[in-house]
Amino acid sequence: MRKTTQFKQLLQSPRTEFILEAHNGISARIVEEAGFKGIWGSGLTISASLGVRDNNEASWTQVLDVVEFMSDVTSIPILLDADTGYGNFNNVRRLVRKLEQRHVAAMCIEDKLFPKTNSFIGEQQPLADVEEFAGKIKAAKDVQSDPDFCVVARVEALIAGWGLGEALRRADAYRRAGADAILIHSKIAEPDEVLAFAAEWQNECPLVIVPTMYHQTPTERFEEAGISLVIWANHLMRAAVLRMQEIARRIHDKRSIASVEGEIAPVRELFRLQNAAELKEAEARYLPARLQRPDVAEIAQQSPLPAPGATVQSTS
Amino acid sequence: MRKTTQFKQLLQSPRTEFILEAHNGISARIVEEAGFKGIWGSGLTISASLGVRDNNEASWTQVLDVVEFMSDVTSIPILLDADTGYGNFNNVRRLVRKLEQRHVAAMCIEDKLFPKTNSFIGEQQPLADVEEFAGKIKAAKDVQSDPDFCVVARVEALIAGWGLGEALRRADAYRRAGADAILIHSKIAEPDEVLAFAAEWQNECPLVIVPTMYHQTPTERFEEAGISLVIWANHLMRAAVLRMQEIARRIHDKRSIASVEGEIAPVRELFRLQNAAELKEAEARYLPARLQRPDVAEIAQQSPLPAPGATVQSTS
Amino acid sequence: MRKTTQFKQLLQSPRTEFILEAHNGISARIVEEAGFKGIWGSGLTISASLGVRDNNEASWTQVLDVVEFMSDVTSIPILLDADTGYGNFNNVRRLVRKLEQRHVAAMCIEDKLFPKTNSFIGEQQPLADVEEFAGKIKAAKDVQSDPDFCVVARVEALIAGWGLGEALRRADAYRRAGADAILIHSKIAEPDEVLAFAAEWQNECPLVIVPTMYHQTPTERFEEAGISLVIWANHLMRAAVLRMQEIARRIHDKRSIASVEGEIAPVRELFRLQNAAELKEAEARYLPARLQRPDVAEIAQQSPLPAPGATVQSTS
Amino acid sequence: MRKTTQFKQLLQSPRTEFILEAHNGISARIVEEAGFKGIWGSGLTISASLGVRDNNEASWTQVLDVVEFMSDVTSIPILLDADTGYGNFNNVRRLVRKLEQRHVAAMCIEDKLFPKTNSFIGEQQPLADVEEFAGKIKAAKDVQSDPDFCVVARVEALIAGWGLGEALRRADAYRRAGADAILIHSKIAEPDEVLAFAAEWQNECPLVIVPTMYHQTPTERFEEAGISLVIWANHLMRAAVLRMQEIARRIHDKRSIASVEGEIAPVRELFRLQNAAELKEAEARYLPARLQRPDVAEIAQQSPLPAPGATVQSTS
Repeated sequence: MRKTTQFKQLLQSPRTEFILEAHNGISARIVEEAGFKGIWGSGLTISASLGVRDNNEASWTQVLDVVEFMSDVTSIPILLDADTGYGNFNNVRRLVRKLEQRHVAAMCIEDKLFPKTNSFIGEQQPLADVEEFAGKIKAAKDVQSDPDFCVVARVEALIAGWGLGEALRRADAYRRAGADAILIHSKIAEPDEVLAFAAEWQNECPLVIVPTMYHQTPTERFEEAGISLVIWANHLMRAAVLRMQEIARRIHDKRSIASVEGEIAPVRELFRLQNAAELKEAEARYLPARLQRPDVAEIAQQSPLPAPGATVQSTS
Repeated sequence: MRKTTQFKQLLQSPRTEFILEAHNGISARIVEEAGFKGIWGSGLTISASLGVRDNNEASWTQVLDVVEFMSDVTSIPILLDADTGYGNFNNVRRLVRKLEQRHVAAMCIEDKLFPKTNSFIGEQQPLADVEEFAGKIKAAKDVQSDPDFCVVARVEALIAGWGLGEALRRADAYRRAGADAILIHSKIAEPDEVLAFAAEWQNECPLVIVPTMYHQTPTERFEEAGISLVIWANHLMRAAVLRMQEIARRIHDKRSIASVEGEIAPVRELFRLQNAAELKEAEARYLPARLQRPDVAEIAQQSPLPAPGATVQSTS
Repeated sequence: MRKTTQFKQLLQSPRTEFILEAHNGISARIVEEAGFKGIWGSGLTISASLGVRDNNEASWTQVLDVVEFMSDVTSIPILLDADTGYGNFNNVRRLVRKLEQRHVAAMCIEDKLFPKTNSFIGEQQPLADVEEFAGKIKAAKDVQSDPDFCVVARVEALIAGWGLGEALRRADAYRRAGADAILIHSKIAEPDEVLAFAAEWQNECPLVIVPTMYHQTPTERFEEAGISLVIWANHLMRAAVLRMQEIARRIHDKRSIASVEGEIAPVRELFRLQNAAELKEAEARYLPARLQRPDVAEIAQQSPLPAPGATVQSTS
Repeated sequence: MRKTTQFKQLLQSPRTEFILEAHNGISARIVEEAGFKGIWGSGLTISASLGVRDNNEASWTQVLDVVEFMSDVTSIPILLDADTGYGNFNNVRRLVRKLEQRHVAAMCIEDKLFPKTNSFIGEQQPLADVEEFAGKIKAAKDVQSDPDFCVVARVEALIAGWGLGEALRRADAYRRAGADAILIHSKIAEPDEVLAFAAEWQNECPLVIVPTMYHQTPTERFEEAGISLVIWANHLMRAAVLRMQEIARRIHDKRSIASVEGEIAPVRELFRLQNAAELKEAEARYLPARLQRPDVAEIAQQSPLPAPGATVQSTS
């Protein structure tokens, strides 16, 4: 099934579905292997992983390059967090064509101004003109060649402090412009805002949420509210950062890797995630015998490390 | 001090120095913050993070793009693992010019054939012609514009099973061609090979090692052997991978992020690593007052997460 | 009709067909507008236009970026001159996937060594191992997802001085490995070599030629010999270079553009080639009325320049 | 002398200086070889050459890639037409750092809105807020590391129909914010607007003009008005386009290249512009003798083409 169709079915599924953040090829593979049905290509964590800010410091083609690597190594759909669309309706049209070429299933654009600011920074950021933003959505839908490519419109009215009425007014305008789903964003520590929105919305089109701030809310409450899709938006990056900081500090202070060896993935697990085995098989098919490499079995055996995916031990 | 000069001083330091692997901007910042004096831009982990194999599947300019992001956000020198130099002497010349523009302090090239295979895969990989490889080193040294840019020549003779004599013969040829240091690589679980090499080498020029396989060797043994630089070559990536796998599985199985929240870096730690604070200050300088965003203090305060760098708890 | 199918039909057409070189988006559009049914994405002229040598100084992804721009603005198929495939069979597989994503219809690979040297430079360049090169072709054909994507195998045996027998032996091996056509290259000033080859070949699979050196040969001779496809390989670049040199010198020496104005395309012709009119129409659809720009008619009218495509005047 | 210093001296020269447009590596070399002291990296012609519109359809890093190729093959300074700076002050800061790394001497930013529209299309385009645009200039000047890197502020007030007073008010604000020169743009067919501006400006800082529309004005009038720098902004691209159209049509219609051979640059002229000779020499230094290629002399001799730079013949 095409990735676009997979994603459309996630949106239209009668159950609440879940996708997890990734920010590069290897984290995307990890999301798929964990059993998720989709990937959130997060603007925050892609920029963080590059080392730049979530303010369009990376160009849109640099983001595209990242998501192309992610798409190449996964078979589940990616929903790209495309910020404001990186410009006006014309930039959005160009983006959609490029995403379709790279088999990215869907994009989410938000009604803020370019260059964007992360939603969790500051208050009452100015929002995009409703009519202009609806024009972006319409342009995206008109230009897509795959009928199942999805456009998710992200409403920032709550997070910017403009209230429920404004959020509903915008969501309705975006739905009428062709949005396949509405992402209603909130940054308070309770789910009240998004649940109130959902109650009013009456499921006119699928709803998507990002419970980064209201992370203690039981998932059942989202299901009861009829939420279609829940995005766990930045958790692999945050997991990786804390762990890398801890390991880096330990190696530095002890001037040795001896103590960390049992708590990190073995080198052969990197090879497995890179699919080195397929290349070995392919060499047998395509290379003259004298150019082939000996078997890798022995190196795998001599690697003195835990099995891939073993639980991290307490490191105190 | 220029990054090139910093790196040259690491090589020439009377003590054994240590650098740690990074594979993107944020891991590079983490290496610097942990106190390391240099960064290993690993071919294996850069390719793994992109989701491709360590066989020159990423083009050399895609690797360059990664290392540019890494260099932009750090003040310590990067030694780039440049595989075989991505072609012949002419490709190496072009690479050196590009690295210098991006303030990458040094590169390491290895005497294998293009496209390369990871050293830990297979046995008796064919090696480069000594004279041709020496020509690459000479070309690199001739083309560099900063006199402190360093070229590290990586000898694969031991790892490919050609013996100590061949390794010494090659190392000497590379040193005479202008290499600033010799990286002597080994994949056996004991340090015997590299220590035997060091004993024979007599410190003709600085020695660099990569103890991925002989990780239990006490660092003192390297110091006694006069090793100049030790590369911890892939440990942040391996730490991140295992941790992301564990967290992804947990979120998937519990359909909730509630239980992981205390074990991952807070969102504000990402903002800190991205240097969001500097942008806030800059807005006050460069934006008209009405376009500035409100203060970020409150969001930082409401974030209910552990301090950056807190030790990971046991997650059983 | 898909571009791949268009190209396959060119190869299989009972008549001799012709394609012309382009090296960037605008020259690709010019080739299409002139009536050609296909475009040759030339390694020589793409590298020349970038300012680098035809020796794989540009990375393969930099070439890919160029050909993506070319493909985006044309509806006829592009045959990319992919040198040696930029590495081994595995690099070729990756390339094919990337070309298909960008709707590039076909690629030509040649049996030389990486990094490549332009065929017109030097004598008796070493050639690729036949079996290894056949493996590249097989790998390409196995990995393509569109059944009409074509692989053209370029035989360098004549140009490298190895003789007709070697050329035929190689061509046959490549055809059996799955090549959709054989490009037989020659650099002598007469067509004798390629005609002799064609006579022996007996049309086992389509033949492609590049008459850069034997440019005075009447096209009828190619038709009689059963050549399927003729590539005019570098002529737009060569036309542009001489003309730009002449105009640059004139502007410099006269310190004025007054005299050149009538001999160059008007600015509005650039706008036409960029399809500015479509954007104007789209603004009416997607932008709120107050954000739309006034009509462009007036600027087009005031432009005092010759119609696009007017014959260049004698400039003496 | 550094390229930045060269450019600053052009601005401060007591005479009127001239720079010519280029849009890729080879046209940049042609500008330098024609005797110009600087290159205009035109937004219009770079986008046109890529095949996209002059409306920020190419990302800023794609433009950066083009200008890097241009800078690599030239020794004279490039003034990059950086549109609006591709975002806000923060995007401008990032751009300046990237340009300095690539040895681009100067950039010109204009007081319009992102995404930009070509100045010759439409009327009364809205302009940037003066204070915000001055903030961009200040941010650029603060972030540059080379004291001679220049920022040219382009005033669009005349071209957008806001009048001389507004133009002067803006120019003065930009000069006070740190601009090294003011580019005053006009699209009427006479130089009256820019001359009136110059008369009022009283040479507070260097003035730059772009006489695309008022191309018949004798250069002496610019000199008398004290103009520092004249930009011939798009003439190589326009020369190349008309010529490529003419040659493409001719080859297509005649199904032959025989008639064009004498009117285009010889292949060896491409090799010369690519500096193939230097590579040949370098091979002698860096390659083992058995890997070197034979001499290229013969191919140069057998090429039956006119000398580089011969005047184009009448083609009727």
